Amino acid sequence: MSDPVIRRTTREDFVASSDPALQEAADRGDVNLLSYRELYHLWERQQWSVQDIDFSQDRIDWNERISPEERFQRMYGLSSFFLGEQRVTAELAPIMRAAPSEDMRIFLSTQIADEGRHVAFFDRFYHEVGVLEADDLQERLAESENHVNPKFRELFDEMLHERVDRLAREPEDLETMVEAVTIYHMVLEGMLALTGQHFIIEYNEQQGTLPGFVEGFSNVARDEHRHVAFGSRFLREMAERDERYRTAITRTLELVAPIAEDVLRPHWYEEGMPLFGYSISEVRAFALKALERRLKAIGLVAVG
Amino acid sequence: MSDPVIRRTTREDFVASSDPALQEAADRGDVNLLSYRELYHLWERQQWSVQDIDFSQDRIDWNERISPEERFQRMYGLSSFFLGEQRVTAELAPIMRAAPSEDMRIFLSTQIADEGRHVAFFDRFYHEVGVLEADDLQERLAESENHVNPKFRELFDEMLHERVDRLAREPEDLETMVEAVTIYHMVLEGMLALTGQHFIIEYNEQQGTLPGFVEGFSNVARDEHRHVAFGSRFLREMAERDERYRTAITRTLELVAPIAEDVLRPHWYEEGMPLFGYSISEVRAFALKALERRLKAIGLVAVG
Ligand SMILES: [Fe+2]
Ligand SMILES: [Fe+2]
Ligand SMILES: [Fe+2]
Ligand SMILES: [Fe+2]
Repeated sequence: MSDPVIRRTTREDFVASSDPALQEAADRGDVNLLSYRELYHLWERQQWSVQDIDFSQDRIDWNERISPEERFQRMYGLSSFFLGEQRVTAELAPIMRAAPSEDMRIFLSTQIADEGRHVAFFDRFYHEVGVLEADDLQERLAESENHVNPKFRELFDEMLHERVDRLAREPEDLETMVEAVTIYHMVLEGMLALTGQHFIIEYNEQQGTLPGFVEGFSNVARDEHRHVAFGSRFLREMAERDERYRTAITRTLELVAPIAEDVLRPHWYEEGMPLFGYSISEVRAFALKALERRLKAIGLVAVG
Repeated sequence: MSDPVIRRTTREDFVASSDPALQEAADRGDVNLLSYRELYHLWERQQWSVQDIDFSQDRIDWNERISPEERFQRMYGLSSFFLGEQRVTAELAPIMRAAPSEDMRIFLSTQIADEGRHVAFFDRFYHEVGVLEADDLQERLAESENHVNPKFRELFDEMLHERVDRLAREPEDLETMVEAVTIYHMVLEGMLALTGQHFIIEYNEQQGTLPGFVEGFSNVARDEHRHVAFGSRFLREMAERDERYRTAITRTLELVAPIAEDVLRPHWYEEGMPLFGYSISEVRAFALKALERRLKAIGLVAVG
């Protein structure tokens, strides 16, 4: 495949986040991460409104131009995002409260609003386009549960949820905070969300489908780059502060990254099937390349 | 005094929130509260940026036009707001995670970002205007602690904090959620913040001082009206759902409102001293009138 990591770096508003995955220089260990306050200011400049998106063409595309089989296949990614955004909105709360500095906390406050906005975006898309029969947010979420992988629940409702619960009870437990940010920002956002967003947006652009969805989902991806830039900076500072935190990051990645790779693969997937026009190994390669650049920025992978 | 409650109702962007305190019809029990989703959409339309505010005239006013005695007096209100915003940002996290519906949670996510933005606003004001010697956010907060009332800490660090801690451990404890929202939205935001904002903004407008501060602080007040509108709707629904929650609201108000009234009065205050041109009893009357209208909307004060 042509290298989609490099292609994405041309979007100025994505690059502005300082996410190492978007910096070619990160391969040589040469990255410049924004400060927490700079990331906050970037958030102020990157506002967008769910209510402004026009889904009228999407409604026609979904119901008249996309076949029932393809709709079913697309439901896997859509449902994983819809439910994923709902899970992470709530789980970010104890992480924000436990943040060891006020500047981190101000940035994480803005990230919480972003995650809520992402839920509102999916909810409005589902409603306006008529993706499900359900007629309110709560029911649409319940119906979406049928479309995701059992590994999805292991990742969000066990791996992430257990650490966040511990942090809610013991906000001063910085090692658990490091584990939670590793799962949240490095794996869920960095490996899963941004990978899914990349391939889904590209596929729709190639097919000329769902223009409203593509517009909103590109805004979601811009937000996620900002979030992952925060996570990279936070983990770099923690890794520098104490060997214990370095170990916590690598231990958590070894435990969780394989489950994330399983979530990238739909439960109905059969070997050789293309996913949005790519093979599963190309999708995995994209996720791992981005992770590698971020780990170099954090100081956990030898540069070379 | 001329009735400042009525005067404020002329600001269309404040009234749009549906905060009952801004609706004269609330005196007759005739209020129309926005839904959680409508409040979310209003948030999308009411964005503002701390970085856009120009504090250059404020710097001149503070250092050259406002006397040292007046600066000292103003520090009471400023410090209470700065520290208050910092406290509520973190404390809203477990409340959001515990929200019993997704639509509530989406709104509360946006409120968290607002509270973080309010901290950033005060921090930038302090820094640009040179209010304190301290040179970063963390130090500015620490230095501000000297300027507040001991009752301030009782309210935020005991009354609110204890309930939020309980909610962090037991997110399904809806009665504690009702108590926390009563303290947070009805007392801290509704009685204290909006009252202080009203008199401080009006005083600066009359004196022709701190134009950048007035601009930003008016945006803060607009946000607070939206927050209190959420609290009013939430408590109305809970009061309708169960007699236990009605009791929890009134019990909490009886406990906490007197402490809030103490916080309105600076520790150095002497009887008869004017506060921003008003007597302390006029300030109290403003706070209580707003509370009364909101309680009528919730269904807890007889209309008539
Ligand atoms: Fe998100
Ligand atoms: Fe995110
Ligand atoms: Fe606030
Ligand atoms: Fe507020």
